[in-house]
Amino acid sequence: MSINLNTLSIVKIGGNIVDNPEALNSLLSDFHQLKGRKLLVHGGGVMASKMAERLGIETKMLDGRRITDAETLQLVTMVYAGWINKSIVASLQKTGCNAIGLSGADANCIPSERRSPVPIDFGFAGDPVTRKINGKFLSTLIENDVVPVFCAITHDENGSLLNTNADTIASSLAVALSEYYRTTLYYCFEKEGVLRDADDKSSLIPLMNQEAFAKLKLQGVVANGMIPKLDNSFKAINQGVSEVVILHAKNLLKKTGTRLIIG
Amino acid sequence: MSINLNTLSIVKIGGNIVDNPEALNSLLSDFHQLKGRKLLVHGGGVMASKMAERLGIETKMLDGRRITDAETLQLVTMVYAGWINKSIVASLQKTGCNAIGLSGADANCIPSERRSPVPIDFGFAGDPVTRKINGKFLSTLIENDVVPVFCAITHDENGSLLNTNADTIASSLAVALSEYYRTTLYYCFEKEGVLRDADDKSSLIPLMNQEAFAKLKLQGVVANGMIPKLDNSFKAINQGVSEVVILHAKNLLKKTGTRLIIG
Repeated sequence: MSINLNTLSIVKIGGNIVDNPEALNSLLSDFHQLKGRKLLVHGGGVMASKMAERLGIETKMLDGRRITDAETLQLVTMVYAGWINKSIVASLQKTGCNAIGLSGADANCIPSERRSPVPIDFGFAGDPVTRKINGKFLSTLIENDVVPVFCAITHDENGSLLNTNADTIASSLAVALSEYYRTTLYYCFEKEGVLRDADDKSSLIPLMNQEAFAKLKLQGVVANGMIPKLDNSFKAINQGVSEVVILHAKNLLKKTGTRLIIG
Repeated sequence: MSINLNTLSIVKIGGNIVDNPEALNSLLSDFHQLKGRKLLVHGGGVMASKMAERLGIETKMLDGRRITDAETLQLVTMVYAGWINKSIVASLQKTGCNAIGLSGADANCIPSERRSPVPIDFGFAGDPVTRKINGKFLSTLIENDVVPVFCAITHDENGSLLNTNADTIASSLAVALSEYYRTTLYYCFEKEGVLRDADDKSSLIPLMNQEAFAKLKLQGVVANGMIPKLDNSFKAINQGVSEVVILHAKNLLKKTGTRLIIG
């Protein structure tokens, strides 16, 4: 396997992996072995909900997004930027991977905009402003063999932290860093990729372009939770990301899954 | 006021300031105005103890140090590296200070050694290995106008995070960075500095060398909690730190307090 020197792999892992020590260790070991320049983005929703329960904070979700009041913002910042982020960094450091844990506030890496309270007020939740991402700083880290590890917390440049979707952070970083690298975005999750039949692994769709995606949507083959993921992925590809691969975490080194391409 | 280009100010603030929003904002505003290269180290013990109570975790202290079992390690990492660190970074970013929040695990900045369990087992608690501090990385950040903000969490390079005394982190960083800068260490606390009479602000001792410190110890003027702080400070000075100033947080810009010097 050889990766061009100017390639950057951005790997996103979700809350289910983060909450499973065995799966997480295995993923981090694979991530360490991934050749070339790389960057990790992690979620942590499962652990945040558990901690919310311990603290007696009610978890309110809408369309898969957490409604983030002040107390919840403190909670997710503690869990994502504190415990999960630093544990991952310490684990990677043990393997010899020179990781640095970051939120979007650090070095102003990911300035974000608080979501409009209309029609739904998600509270302290925001979305990255891609054109403001500090790609220069991140590429300097990466060129010095420092591996950024991002949690899903950003800020509004006005003193407020913001809870931010980890998928969106990954795709925004991929777009912004496409100015510096040939960027591939890996979304790791619990399935082999996009399947024609959710219960049949062998029905994996190995390659998909935008036209095929449109057809599969019409046919109802791709539905529900997978649609926003794919919409976002194609949006990233249209903004300069070379490739998006949706795959099972255990296949990160083999890179087998559903490969999304332009055209 | 002019500060030589090669001067670095390391400012340490404790848990009392961190837990007081007004005092913290005022300190951060002063820190932002501090000219020249700088670095912040913060504690957070007061907030950690409050969160421990909410989570039903017993706080066990010995000689002013927290006994850190696995559950307490998670707690302090959440509070120090998560909420406090990122809140401070977001506040500094608002003022235009390009802060980056770090633990000792990030970019392997502060490798530490777990404390010997004999005679007292402090659990996941450790002390920085000063000669291993990643001064090269930190000085590169600083030369790029990025301001490191350290919480009091480090790691053992073997996958484990470690709870670490914030005063010790500050002095270890000051010693390590003395290779790159003329370093001054500012310990901010609730008193004007070292006082001859604890109840009389006007009894401030403005300047102290090691000989004077030895005398004041013999006379019983300096006692209790102040002794380890001063011992550590003189140790830092003997290892290359130019100056240590012990002062009230509100006097950071005036820099009036007790100035410790070599000789």
